[in-house]
Amino acid sequence: MGGDHGLRSTVPASIKFAENNPKVNVKLFAVKDASLSIPSLSNLEIRYCESSVAMDESISVALRRKMSSSMAQALVEVENRQADICVSAGNTAALLAFGYHILGAYSGLKRPAICKPIPTLIGHSYMLDLGANVNVEPSVLHDFAKLGCGLSRLVDGNSSPKVALLNIGTESKKGNEVIQQAHALLKNDKTLNYSGFIEGDSIYSGHVDVIVCDGFVGNVALKVSEGVARMALSQLKESFKSSLYGRALGQFARPLLRKWRTQFDPARYNGACFLGLNGSVIKSHGSADSLAFQYALEMAHDFASKKTTELLRDEMAEFITS
Amino acid sequence: MGGDHGLRSTVPASIKFAENNPKVNVKLFAVKDASLSIPSLSNLEIRYCESSVAMDESISVALRRKMSSSMAQALVEVENRQADICVSAGNTAALLAFGYHILGAYSGLKRPAICKPIPTLIGHSYMLDLGANVNVEPSVLHDFAKLGCGLSRLVDGNSSPKVALLNIGTESKKGNEVIQQAHALLKNDKTLNYSGFIEGDSIYSGHVDVIVCDGFVGNVALKVSEGVARMALSQLKESFKSSLYGRALGQFARPLLRKWRTQFDPARYNGACFLGLNGSVIKSHGSADSLAFQYALEMAHDFASKKTTELLRDEMAEFITS
Repeated sequence: MGGDHGLRSTVPASIKFAENNPKVNVKLFAVKDASLSIPSLSNLEIRYCESSVAMDESISVALRRKMSSSMAQALVEVENRQADICVSAGNTAALLAFGYHILGAYSGLKRPAICKPIPTLIGHSYMLDLGANVNVEPSVLHDFAKLGCGLSRLVDGNSSPKVALLNIGTESKKGNEVIQQAHALLKNDKTLNYSGFIEGDSIYSGHVDVIVCDGFVGNVALKVSEGVARMALSQLKESFKSSLYGRALGQFARPLLRKWRTQFDPARYNGACFLGLNGSVIKSHGSADSLAFQYALEMAHDFASKKTTELLRDEMAEFITS
Repeated sequence: MGGDHGLRSTVPASIKFAENNPKVNVKLFAVKDASLSIPSLSNLEIRYCESSVAMDESISVALRRKMSSSMAQALVEVENRQADICVSAGNTAALLAFGYHILGAYSGLKRPAICKPIPTLIGHSYMLDLGANVNVEPSVLHDFAKLGCGLSRLVDGNSSPKVALLNIGTESKKGNEVIQQAHALLKNDKTLNYSGFIEGDSIYSGHVDVIVCDGFVGNVALKVSEGVARMALSQLKESFKSSLYGRALGQFARPLLRKWRTQFDPARYNGACFLGLNGSVIKSHGSADSLAFQYALEMAHDFASKKTTELLRDEMAEFITS
């Protein structure tokens, strides 16, 4: 139900995904709507719910009044082991709150985190937290490092992921108190392949596999990237449009430019995971169109097939007790 | 002396600037070096200094031992009214510390800030702080808003600059405690045209004239932008290089692509100002090449010609006492 485009984006993407993956069962949770038309596919079903969570609804209101919403019911399906993973383009804060409330978090873990693979010059890196935690203690950043490295190991088979702490310089004294203390914790943790500080201009270099930061900084970094990407695309279009010569050239260059756009646009990696919950949840970008939502579904499929949540919980239990 | 390219970038830029601006006197502060060759121009002189501040030198060491450095001596020249403004591509932290030590700050102002015009889709906006203050109180963010608006008024003649607070959402409850309290201060300040929160993806939209944030977040946002821009350029180059067709097309498209690059690259606006010091200081990006350093010199010229520092101090004195 959620996202900027609502059913116009999520439903066609889900149909396409169900068609492409006949062995995967897709369940849609939605409020009954005249515009909803679902083809008859053996692996696609729809569950009608009483309500949905609005994009700007406050968490407290949602938690109190919206247990029968499509969002909450999809998470209950995961909790009841009737689904392996839940994907939503809706209200991030509400999805996280319902996720925490319905699924619970790994025992011993202070805070779950939002984590996303970001495209780099040579592949992708995982960045966390991206907005779940605006105030963090150093030990929480330490936990994020473990979660991110676990993800890199489990999803990408990377045996010794390199992790870095986002800071405003690479010299050892840079940053605030929390960053300084987290740096000490990470340096002393011999189970991690910690490479020290990373600056904002290097996160897309691919030099490290996991980038750790608090949710405020991570959220700003991710959204700023989208803003720059949008400006780049828009101004490139303008330069090609600014003359007859440019317009003609633009016609010839179109396939190349489209390829570039797909490759470089930070939005193409659609799908963030909520790490630390006792159940798998993928959050699609609210602005995702149908194609982008399909990416999120594919990511969810990969994530669930690899039993990432369960394996990560086992791994973290070891780390937390050790 | 500073920056990644040292004299190879700053000296040619200064010569070019002196040639283009015969009525402006340019004084270079440098350690004697065999490679230093300065043409005889009536408005260009060189002052030899005993030492220079290293890019990674700690502030405390610099302040104790480097008063005779090129950086400190250039600031003393401003303090003694023998120069209207100082431009450096060197160690940012040391430049700020020396600036504070030698020039002092506006009376009543808690913290000076690093501020930069950032390119937007429709012009530019001022963003501050960009790294001088990693921990701020709400009242400091309030001061930053006043400084930024003063700059927009004085440099751009914008009579009622729109100011926004960088946050991870636009809903009123988003963000941490400091952001919430700063939001209240800004909302209640009737001398400001405050438009509320702005998210990272909108800072390049040009919807507001001044964007306020703490130095940690601002520094990350700026550097992440550079990283995305670099990735965009590099991957665009790659797509044109990836086939014979692309290479041929690239030849024709070169002028267009160069124009786009100049227009969109966030690095093109080279030059950050230290706002709140009793003297004018412009910091060039360390990675600036000769052309980029020339931009910083031109920005400095404009800044000094408009007596920005003096007028801003008068304006702030009014605000602080009122």
